[in-house]
Amino acid sequence: MKVIKIGGNVIDNPQALDEFIDSFSKIEGPKVLVHGGGKVASKLATDMGIEVKMVEGRRITDDAMLDVVTMVYAGLVNKKVVAKLQAKGVNALGLTGADANVLLADKRNHPTIDFGNVGDVKQANGDTILKFSEMGIVPVFSAITHNGNGQLLNTNADTIASEVAKALAKLTETELIYVFELPGVMLDIKNMDSVVENINVDKYAQLKLDGIVADGMIPKLDNSFEALKKGVSVVRIASTYYINNENTKHTSLVL
Amino acid sequence: MKVIKIGGNVIDNPQALDEFIDSFSKIEGPKVLVHGGGKVASKLATDMGIEVKMVEGRRITDDAMLDVVTMVYAGLVNKKVVAKLQAKGVNALGLTGADANVLLADKRNHPTIDFGNVGDVKQANGDTILKFSEMGIVPVFSAITHNGNGQLLNTNADTIASEVAKALAKLTETELIYVFELPGVMLDIKNMDSVVENINVDKYAQLKLDGIVADGMIPKLDNSFEALKKGVSVVRIASTYYINNENTKHTSLVL
Repeated sequence: MKVIKIGGNVIDNPQALDEFIDSFSKIEGPKVLVHGGGKVASKLATDMGIEVKMVEGRRITDDAMLDVVTMVYAGLVNKKVVAKLQAKGVNALGLTGADANVLLADKRNHPTIDFGNVGDVKQANGDTILKFSEMGIVPVFSAITHNGNGQLLNTNADTIASEVAKALAKLTETELIYVFELPGVMLDIKNMDSVVENINVDKYAQLKLDGIVADGMIPKLDNSFEALKKGVSVVRIASTYYINNENTKHTSLVL
Repeated sequence: MKVIKIGGNVIDNPQALDEFIDSFSKIEGPKVLVHGGGKVASKLATDMGIEVKMVEGRRITDDAMLDVVTMVYAGLVNKKVVAKLQAKGVNALGLTGADANVLLADKRNHPTIDFGNVGDVKQANGDTILKFSEMGIVPVFSAITHNGNGQLLNTNADTIASEVAKALAKLTETELIYVFELPGVMLDIKNMDSVVENINVDKYAQLKLDGIVADGMIPKLDNSFEALKKGVSVVRIASTYYINNENTKHTSLVL
C-alpha cells in the first residue's frame, strides 16, 4: 500500500497537477492520495470579504473560514482531482474524515492561540480505508475531518497522510511518500544536486540546528519519523518524477 | 432499499434540515440520500460577482458557475449533511457521480439553449452503491456528476434520485421517496387536507391540464413514473413527517 501526499503547490499549478495525476495513475497496486488545499481558499475568502488570519503558518479557522475551506478542499479541489483520476482509469473516491467516518479528530486546544475549527486526528479508520482499496477504489483525502458530533474541522494534510499510513500499516505493508515541488530535503535550495538522500533522527536534529530544515518541513519530518516509529515501512520526501522512477534522487527517512 | 431525496428548501432551513436528519437517521434498513443544493450557490455566485442565469428553471452552468456549484453542493452542503448524519450514528458517505464512478452523465445537448456544464445521467452504478450499503454505509449524493473524461457536470437532483433508484431496483427491492416542504401533491396549496393520495398516469395528465401540477413538479412526476416503469416498487411524494410515520398523508404514484 502506498500513501502519497501532494502539497498545495502541485494543486495550484495546473500543469504540475496534470503531470502528477498522470504519474499517480501509473502506480501499480493499492494506493491512497492525500492532497493539500493550495491558495484557492485564501483567494476565495478574500473575494468573499473574509479576513485570512495565519498564526505560526497555520490558518485560524472561524466558522466563515471553515465554510470556505470545506467548499474549496472537499468540494472544488477534491472533486476536480477525483474526476481527473477517473479519466485516467483510477477509480478514485473523494473523502473527508466525516465520510464513512474514516478520520475522527479533536478540536485543537492550544494554551494561548484559538485556532477555531482546527482538528488534530484522534483516530484513522484503517479497516474502512483498506476495504475501499480491496474494492479496487483509490481513496482521495482532502484536509477536512470531523469530531463525530457534527462538527467539521480543518486539519493539516501532512498529518492526515501520516495518520492514514500508520492506520494502514497495522493491517498491511505501507509506504508513505510526501511529493512536492523539490526532489527532497535540500542542503542548498538552489542546487538540485544537494538532496540529502538519507535522514535519521540524529541527522534531523543536526539539520534543524543548522537551519536547513525549517518552517513547514519540520512538521512534515516530525510526521515522517512518527510514521516510521508506528510501523510504516518506508517514508520518503520526493518530487513527482520519483513516483514512476525510483532511481530519481529523493530523501529517505530512517530511524 | 429506500432512496430518499430532499429538496433545496429543506437544505436552506436549518431547523427543517435538523428535523429531517433526525427522521432520516431513524429509518431502519438500507437507505440512500440525495440532496439538492438550495439557495447558497446563487448567493455565493453573487458574492463572487458571477452572474446567475436561469432558463426554464434550470441553471446555466458556465465554468465559473460549475466551480461554485461544486464547492457548494459537493463541498459545503454535502459535508455538513454527512457530518450531521455521523453525529446521529448514520455511517454516511458523501458522493458526487465522479466518486467511485457511481454516476456517469453526458453533457446536455439542447437544440437552442447552451446550458453549459449540465449533465444528464447516462449510467448509475448500482453494484457499487449496493456494495457500500452492504458495508453498512449510507451513500449521500450531491447533484454533481462527471462524464468520465475529467469533466464535472451539474445535474438535477430529482433525476439523480430516480436514476439511483432504478439502478438499485435491478438488484434489490427499492422505494423512492421525494421529501419536501409540503405533504404531497396538493389540489389547493393553501389547504393541507387537499393532498392527492394516489396519482396514476391518467390522473397525472388531467392534473397537468388543470394546471394543478406545474413547474418543478412536472419533472419530479416524470421521473417518478419513469422509476415505476423501470422496476422501482414504490414512489411517493411526502413531507418529512411521513418518513417516520407512514400513516401521514402523502402522494403515492401508481402506473
